[in-house]
Order: sequence, then C-alpha cells, then structure tokens
Amino acid sequence: MQFDVTILGSNAAIPAYNRHPSSQALNYNGNIFLIDCGEGTQFRMNEFGIKRGNLNNIFISHLHGDHYFGLVALLTSFNLNWREHPLHIYGPPALEEIINVHFKHSSTQLRYELHFHSVLADEPKIIYEDSTLTVETIILTHRLPTTGFLFKEKKHLRKIIAEKITEYNIPHHKITDIKRGEDFIDESGKKISNAELTLDPLPQRSYAYCSDTVYTESFIEQIKGVNTLYHEATFIHEHEERATETFHTTTKQAAKIAKLSNAGKLLIGHFSARYDDLNFLLNESKEVFPETFLAEEGKTFSI
Amino acid sequence: MQFDVTILGSNAAIPAYNRHPSSQALNYNGNIFLIDCGEGTQFRMNEFGIKRGNLNNIFISHLHGDHYFGLVALLTSFNLNWREHPLHIYGPPALEEIINVHFKHSSTQLRYELHFHSVLADEPKIIYEDSTLTVETIILTHRLPTTGFLFKEKKHLRKIIAEKITEYNIPHHKITDIKRGEDFIDESGKKISNAELTLDPLPQRSYAYCSDTVYTESFIEQIKGVNTLYHEATFIHEHEERATETFHTTTKQAAKIAKLSNAGKLLIGHFSARYDDLNFLLNESKEVFPETFLAEEGKTFSI
Repeated sequence: MQFDVTILGSNAAIPAYNRHPSSQALNYNGNIFLIDCGEGTQFRMNEFGIKRGNLNNIFISHLHGDHYFGLVALLTSFNLNWREHPLHIYGPPALEEIINVHFKHSSTQLRYELHFHSVLADEPKIIYEDSTLTVETIILTHRLPTTGFLFKEKKHLRKIIAEKITEYNIPHHKITDIKRGEDFIDESGKKISNAELTLDPLPQRSYAYCSDTVYTESFIEQIKGVNTLYHEATFIHEHEERATETFHTTTKQAAKIAKLSNAGKLLIGHFSARYDDLNFLLNESKEVFPETFLAEEGKTFSI
Repeated sequence: MQFDVTILGSNAAIPAYNRHPSSQALNYNGNIFLIDCGEGTQFRMNEFGIKRGNLNNIFISHLHGDHYFGLVALLTSFNLNWREHPLHIYGPPALEEIINVHFKHSSTQLRYELHFHSVLADEPKIIYEDSTLTVETIILTHRLPTTGFLFKEKKHLRKIIAEKITEYNIPHHKITDIKRGEDFIDESGKKISNAELTLDPLPQRSYAYCSDTVYTESFIEQIKGVNTLYHEATFIHEHEERATETFHTTTKQAAKIAKLSNAGKLLIGHFSARYDDLNFLLNESKEVFPETFLAEEGKTFSI
C-alpha cells in the first residue's frame, strides 16, 4: 500500500525564496488527502502532478490565511473543470462561512456536493474513517483554535502462507477468517493453528501533521511511535523567545517532540521568511533528532 | 514620466501552462496601481520586482475569483511586513464583506489604514484622482457587475523654451503661469506671446483595462484614441458562440474594439486554459488590428 506525503508549501505566513504557504498532499493507496491549502496550492498540485480526481478530503488546521487562502480557488477550479463527485472539507466552523460568502457574491453554483465537517479544537477525536485509515485531530496550542491531524492505518490482516493453502486444501471462503486470526478445521476435523498458517501482519503506519503550535508535550502520548512526524519549526533555536511570543516552535523544540514521541522520522517546515538557507535549521534539529528532513516543496516522503 | 504596465497574470479562470489568473501592475512615475489580483499575485510581484511600498491603490474589476482571490493574502502580507501607510481598494461593494469575514475569523488587526471605495457598475465615473492622473470606470457587460478602468494622464503644462527665459529675463515666479499658457509682460511693458515662449505640451496618455466582458461597443466613445488598450480575448474566433454564452470575447472581437477605438496598441489576455500555444490567438487578432501584443506574464508595455 502506497503511503507517502508530498510537500506543496513549506513556508510560514510570508512567501519568500520561492517557498510558499502550507500545504501537503498525502497519498494513501492512490487516494489523495490534502492537508492545509495555502495560496497557490492548485498551482503546485499541477507542478508536482497531484491527481485532483483522486482528492476527496481536505483538512484545514486553522484560519490563518497561509493555511487556507488557496482553498476557495481550488474549489472553484474543481467546479470549472466539471468535477461531479463529492468533496469533504474538515476545518474550523467559521471556514464554512468564509467559503459561502465567496460563492454567494460570485453567484457560484457547485456542480458537485461539498460536505463541510466542522472540527473543534477541544479534544482529540476521529473525524474521518474508511476501511483502511482513520484521521484523528491533534489539539495544538496556537493563537487561534488549531488542530493537527494523525493519519493512522487500520490494523492489517495477518498474511496467509500460500503453501499452507495447498497443503491443507483450505477452501477460498475460509481465507479471510484465517487472515483475521482464526484457526482452521480440515475435512477430517483436525485443527490447524492460525500460528502455523499465517505470518504477522504488516505494522500499522501513521503520519502526524502538527502545525501551527507553540512547544507543547500535550499530544506526545497520542502520537507515540508515529512513523513520520511533520512538526513546524518556524524559527532557529536562538529565536526561541520570538517563537514563544508568536505561538510557534523552534528547530530544537520540534526535534525534542520527535524524540519524546519516538517518531521514526521528523519533517520540519513552516519556515520563517527571514531564513534563506535552511541547512542551519536542519542541522540544529539533527543535533537533537538525527532523522530530521527539511519538508521542501516537491519532495515526497514515504511514511 | 514613466507610464507602463507589467502583466502579472494572463489566464482566464483556470490556471494552466504556467499562466496565472488576472493581475497587472501599472507604474505611473513610480506609483504602482494594481489592477485585479488573482490568486498568487503576490508571488509574481516578487518574481517581477514590483515595489510593494509604492503600491497604494488596488482596483478590482468584479467578483469572479480569478480577479480577486489573491487580494486578502496580499493585504495580509502587507500587514506581516509592517506596512504602515494607507491602502485604497476600489471594487464591487460586496468585496468589503469578503475582506472583513476573513479578517474577523483570523482575528487580524491591520497596522495600516485600509480604505474601501465601493464601485458600482452603473455609469462611467472618476473614482480616483491625483495631481497627474485620473481613473474612470468603464462599464462592461459580464455575468456579474463588472467595470474596466481607464487611466488618463491629466493635461500636461506647456514646455517653456529655456533660451527664452534668458532672452526676456523671465523671473522664476512667472514660469508656471507661462507653462499654463499665459503671455509674459517684460519690464518695459512689452507683451511676449505665449506662442513665442513655449512648445506644445506632451500629449496626454491613457490606458484602458477591459476585462471581463462580452463583445460590446458601448464604451468605444469613452476610450477613443486610447494609447494602449488591454481587452480580454478569452477565445479564438471559431469559439465565438462559447464566448457569447459565457460573456467573454474572441480575439477578432477584441481587435475590432481596438480598431473602432482608434487605439495605439492592443494587449490581449485572459486566455482560456484550452489554448497552449497563443500564437494562433495573436495572429487572429493581428488580422484585424496589426498592433496587437500578447499580454504575457512578466512583460512590461510602455503606454
């Protein structure tokens, strides 16, 4: 199962050095989940070949413009491109009013169903679920109500050993039960234990998106063991005071969260426009958490 | 006096082929006037070196998103960049509600004064005036109330001939009166006619921005003799029916407007996303009006 994330926008509020505001496209087995949608997200979806037809769910963390100013433009382009299948948006309640005021004044009639799901930043909860994946909110601490998002694979089925099917003449209709962990009773009534027939399933993978937030350990337990953590690192560590004032995080703080969460790897992003060269930020974070990567636009990270 | 226009966005509603939605930066003697502000306008202002500090007036033609979706992002960036001097916006009344709903939900407090000027698409009127320039609305015919904008230099003063100042010993405080057309009475009481002292002033230059609109000759008299006309040409002429249905214009129709207006040159833009190569559009327009140019992004046209 493909499970990766492509960075569409990596900068904080002011675009600079050809870096743009926040947006990411998460691909799970061909389904695209868009996380935040800063200005120009649709341009970078074109540039990086993100398939719009496979995008059905958009998650918006909070209502600072650098996280959603591209949304109504994207919704409008879908409409002009004759989209017909439904689209779901998950975001702060007021986002619905913002979308509606634009559409009202442009007399826009959508050709597709737009389902708006209000997301409150009060406590972590599952806001999306399908047969393979759940998405939970992560409660962040910022100047506005803000949620991160934890994408978690559901538990995989056990892997059946192909030769055992032949050896015990297992009928087709029993396969799923065995994958779920059941033993098998053969024609003679003999029980074959599940442990003999199957291998452990693939581990459940997960991706956590945490932006924007001041340094807080409040969600560490929730994301413990996450495969890939995206955590904002707006500032270098020397600017810690400024980070705290503006409810943002430094490189070393993001790295500390990754370490405490026992994350597999850390992507840092939401870079302040004051930094041209990002290697200094990368190196600072690596001092605390070596498996750090810069969430640079156009890069795709396997989860 | 510098008087030119830089194209920031040249495409119709759907961005394509690295062409972006409508925006232009008009430079009059160093003052920047922004006309329309599609998504990503601030990125292209950076790219093409448009000086934001000199931008004090923004004109929005109508409320289709491809003409204003970049506006609130630009206003926000001004704020984050510590702008302090006032900014004026001229546009449809509902635009103010749109701006306010964004700022309300992001708890944005502007550091600078934002003056909103409601522009109705009822009859042509002067909506901006300073010592050198006026801006008049042009009433266009589109699916929403839409105005174009006519930028007109005020009448220049006559040019005084430097040698005559010495010859007749003209005192400094008389110079402006003479430039305005007065005769000069010298110390002996002799009248020197203005015609002897001055040359004709520079001609008044003008720029008309007409987008979006169906083909209409209703504003021809108003823009007669315009130096540079920007007129939308969303479609090739074969797609005239589609143009009429959607209240847009074809290449040959735009060229006909330029011809009837006796324009100096014609810039065509607002290209449909269906056309990759624009040379066909250019050539079609040139058949009717040879002085046609493609309003390609990054190009600057002297007016």
